[in-house]
Amino acid sequence: MNKLRIIPLGGLGEIGKNMTVLEHGRDMIIVDCGVMFPDNDMYGIDLVLPQFDYVIANQDRLRGIVLTHGHMDHIGGLPYLLRQIQAPLYGTPLTLGMVKRQLQEANVLPRARLNLVNEKSVLQLGSFKVSLFAVAHSIPGAVGLVIDTPVGTVVHTGDYKLDETPAGGRITDLARLRRLTSNGVLALLADSTNADRPGRTPTEQLVGEALDGLFTGAKGGRIVIATFASLLARLQEIMRLAEKHGRKVALTGRSLVDNVALARELGYLTVPDGLLVEPSAKVPNGKLVILATGAQGEPRSALNRMAQGEHREVQLKPGDTVIISGGTIPGNEAEVSRMLNKLFALGTNVIYGKLATTHVSGHGSRDEMTAMLQATRPKYLIPVHGETRHLHLHARLAHDHGLAPENAFILKNGAAWATDGKKAWLDAPVAASDVLVDGRLVGEVAAIVLRDRQRLSQDGFIVALIPVDKRNKLAGEPEIITRGFVPEGVSRDLLQAARREIKRHHQHGKIVGHDQVRETLQRFFYRETRSWPVVLPSLIRV
Amino acid sequence: MNKLRIIPLGGLGEIGKNMTVLEHGRDMIIVDCGVMFPDNDMYGIDLVLPQFDYVIANQDRLRGIVLTHGHMDHIGGLPYLLRQIQAPLYGTPLTLGMVKRQLQEANVLPRARLNLVNEKSVLQLGSFKVSLFAVAHSIPGAVGLVIDTPVGTVVHTGDYKLDETPAGGRITDLARLRRLTSNGVLALLADSTNADRPGRTPTEQLVGEALDGLFTGAKGGRIVIATFASLLARLQEIMRLAEKHGRKVALTGRSLVDNVALARELGYLTVPDGLLVEPSAKVPNGKLVILATGAQGEPRSALNRMAQGEHREVQLKPGDTVIISGGTIPGNEAEVSRMLNKLFALGTNVIYGKLATTHVSGHGSRDEMTAMLQATRPKYLIPVHGETRHLHLHARLAHDHGLAPENAFILKNGAAWATDGKKAWLDAPVAASDVLVDGRLVGEVAAIVLRDRQRLSQDGFIVALIPVDKRNKLAGEPEIITRGFVPEGVSRDLLQAARREIKRHHQHGKIVGHDQVRETLQRFFYRETRSWPVVLPSLIRV
Repeated sequence: MNKLRIIPLGGLGEIGKNMTVLEHGRDMIIVDCGVMFPDNDMYGIDLVLPQFDYVIANQDRLRGIVLTHGHMDHIGGLPYLLRQIQAPLYGTPLTLGMVKRQLQEANVLPRARLNLVNEKSVLQLGSFKVSLFAVAHSIPGAVGLVIDTPVGTVVHTGDYKLDETPAGGRITDLARLRRLTSNGVLALLADSTNADRPGRTPTEQLVGEALDGLFTGAKGGRIVIATFASLLARLQEIMRLAEKHGRKVALTGRSLVDNVALARELGYLTVPDGLLVEPSAKVPNGKLVILATGAQGEPRSALNRMAQGEHREVQLKPGDTVIISGGTIPGNEAEVSRMLNKLFALGTNVIYGKLATTHVSGHGSRDEMTAMLQATRPKYLIPVHGETRHLHLHARLAHDHGLAPENAFILKNGAAWATDGKKAWLDAPVAASDVLVDGRLVGEVAAIVLRDRQRLSQDGFIVALIPVDKRNKLAGEPEIITRGFVPEGVSRDLLQAARREIKRHHQHGKIVGHDQVRETLQRFFYRETRSWPVVLPSLIRV
Repeated sequence: MNKLRIIPLGGLGEIGKNMTVLEHGRDMIIVDCGVMFPDNDMYGIDLVLPQFDYVIANQDRLRGIVLTHGHMDHIGGLPYLLRQIQAPLYGTPLTLGMVKRQLQEANVLPRARLNLVNEKSVLQLGSFKVSLFAVAHSIPGAVGLVIDTPVGTVVHTGDYKLDETPAGGRITDLARLRRLTSNGVLALLADSTNADRPGRTPTEQLVGEALDGLFTGAKGGRIVIATFASLLARLQEIMRLAEKHGRKVALTGRSLVDNVALARELGYLTVPDGLLVEPSAKVPNGKLVILATGAQGEPRSALNRMAQGEHREVQLKPGDTVIISGGTIPGNEAEVSRMLNKLFALGTNVIYGKLATTHVSGHGSRDEMTAMLQATRPKYLIPVHGETRHLHLHARLAHDHGLAPENAFILKNGAAWATDGKKAWLDAPVAASDVLVDGRLVGEVAAIVLRDRQRLSQDGFIVALIPVDKRNKLAGEPEIITRGFVPEGVSRDLLQAARREIKRHHQHGKIVGHDQVRETLQRFFYRETRSWPVVLPSLIRV
């Protein structure tokens, strides 16, 4: 049967771990392989991966993994996938540069075949003909894909905005996209991130203008700018402004230093001779810009260490200007807020998003999404790259512009969308759960452990060691071990009372089992403290 | 000495637990006594209170507690304070109505003397003459204070905006404020909440207009509106719109039902006969508005239960319109986001802040803060009601409008700001830490317990029970109890290996102590899993 299947393994109903499988006959290709950073309620989890089982089971059919750009939510899953399978990867120079560094660190580089492409490349991967087109996004070298398949043409936008004056000057190539899709588009998979933002996303040029003004106002003080290490065009603009205003630039933060080195090597960043100095260099305050990591308030980042007065080389003081040139990723609001407060408390002139246009989104807003729909006029729309509400709002937007409601498919991760080019339907879904990475454990820590951690985080725990004899009779003084419950001063009396409670409940009978002891203690502690610590009795046979 | 002292016990460097002490000679008054809801990193904490020690130590001098309005961050601390002291309280009818309900629930009502005042009241409290003036805020009956003291006049704005067309029509009475301060203002304590918002806060009238349009668009479906239970003017507007559009109104959520009853009783809410129905009443969908709690995505709120399909009376479906008519309080972003996604997944037409003006802030923005500075022309400014950054931005704004930089005081909680009317200085501070409420424990759970909970939340714990004989020699098989660490499937082998590790390390020598065992195990588990569970060894003497 002449059937195309599109299976999102991640990125739908979430912002993160983007990964999409396309299948036709004996051929399979994958677009992107990202990770997601955990929600605050995923206690102790480091990363979330897509579930790779379906890909692993079908690895003999895999013709290639095409990467749209080098952000972690598009490439961060590769080191984990490549532990389990070998695969050819396709990406532009910066994308592959970032992939290579990751694979090296994970010791899996030999398992990948890296294939450099550019924004005009056309790849034949089995029965899929994949043509790339340039898109403007917040990292250089980003591309969208036009995928010709035996049943019709599929467009995957990747992450894009339609900025006419982006940093670096590389705009989304709608002309090439139109040419490549002149025979019509069967299905459009399009970025939904900003489906709740009206109008157009402001141009990156506004950021340059705002920064220029702030440079002028900073006078004799240092300028510290925190931004994303991957926002290379922003870094380029800051270096241009530094040169214009006669300042040197120091870099602090490992990812920033690494990315600048990589981007210079690959020609994505032009740094005038003598512009860069070490953070410890003796440069007058009015002649220095410090580029730092930490736009998200990450505890160990360079800027947060400055905010706490713990940075080895940079002690901030009144007269310095601190600019946050990066948006706050949802979930990081509290950490950013704490850091801003500390920076203000140091007396520095802090400028953040609410006060000036120091950052713009890398994703297009509603009018740009409409323009993409109009440029491609797809038969079917599959909104991707968004939480559930963004996918729905994207579909609603398409309806408003004439797409038949039944032709927009709100999919879940794992859904197997199928089409023969004339109609579309859903096959049985494949497994696509969150795979949790916790230290060395990948996919082993699951819901029950997270529930335990959640409960421990609220009220701590109590382990009651109860000595019993062979007939399960209490044979000594119970001992109680606790952490995270109540402070020692309070616990002394409370635990003494708990021991009495155990003895009182059990002196006339035997200790019949863990459950009974646990229940006695849980009720006792709730009565005394109104909290529910995890209670674990242990009968010690003596 | 003729000295006025102003001591903020809460509300500075934070949004919450507002409480300010004013002292002159043998007289002390207090403005507000609020609580704060805990940050996400205050594991297991229910509420945060101001530290009352200073007030308790000086209770013989306390002439009264004046309440500006009935929000929890201004009145929620009273049940705790009144456990420890008796005091006369002053507030407008709705404020005192809300206070009374709280004190009743806490069984401390007899310890308060409630004194009803209105927005024209003038109170003589010892040497303080306190004149009230109306302010527009997101709850009716809010007032600001002009406090004449022997050294000069102090203005405390309370929470305000300068909305010219607020819901309920009650505007901030700047004319009265100007009259009351015609002899000049020594110190202004002013709301800093929106110090990073340019311009003016949009008027509440825009919300009414937006809701009217959404009512028109909702056609034959139900309209569910989630808002704050204390936003009574919003509730009034929604009831007016319901009547206009021929819909009945059902209330769901306890705080909403309680507040509507209280506000009707006190005349703050006019409900046409027959408008209200039970949520279970048989009303056609196109004739029904459901008012619900849950604008913050609170797990047990009415709207969140609807979103999860767990509400007893309301099952949402396509065709229904759900409107979030309340801002997201910082820290609640993730919960609101999850709820929105579930509501979209049900197929309902969800409208939230980014999509329409369904909410406006109750606090004035920068231009309104400027207008307040110009109306009062204070000698000294003490920005209040804000995180550190808001206080600094407020002071910066005042500098821009001519206040001498040294006359703006950025205080910390507990700072004792003193003035003789001519100059101002800081006395030694008083104790004003966060007092944490955890179940029944008030002020007893402290940093060390929170650190334990934080660590438990990430990696769980391991208790190792190690049987030793009288000479501390291993006398049996060690047992290991764990929760929140790794799942059972993984832990079986891992814990087996850990037991071997204990024996290997200790077979040749004695088990010399807890520390040694803990270190052995911590190193072992880090090596195996890259995580740091809490490890507690317990030597069991057999």
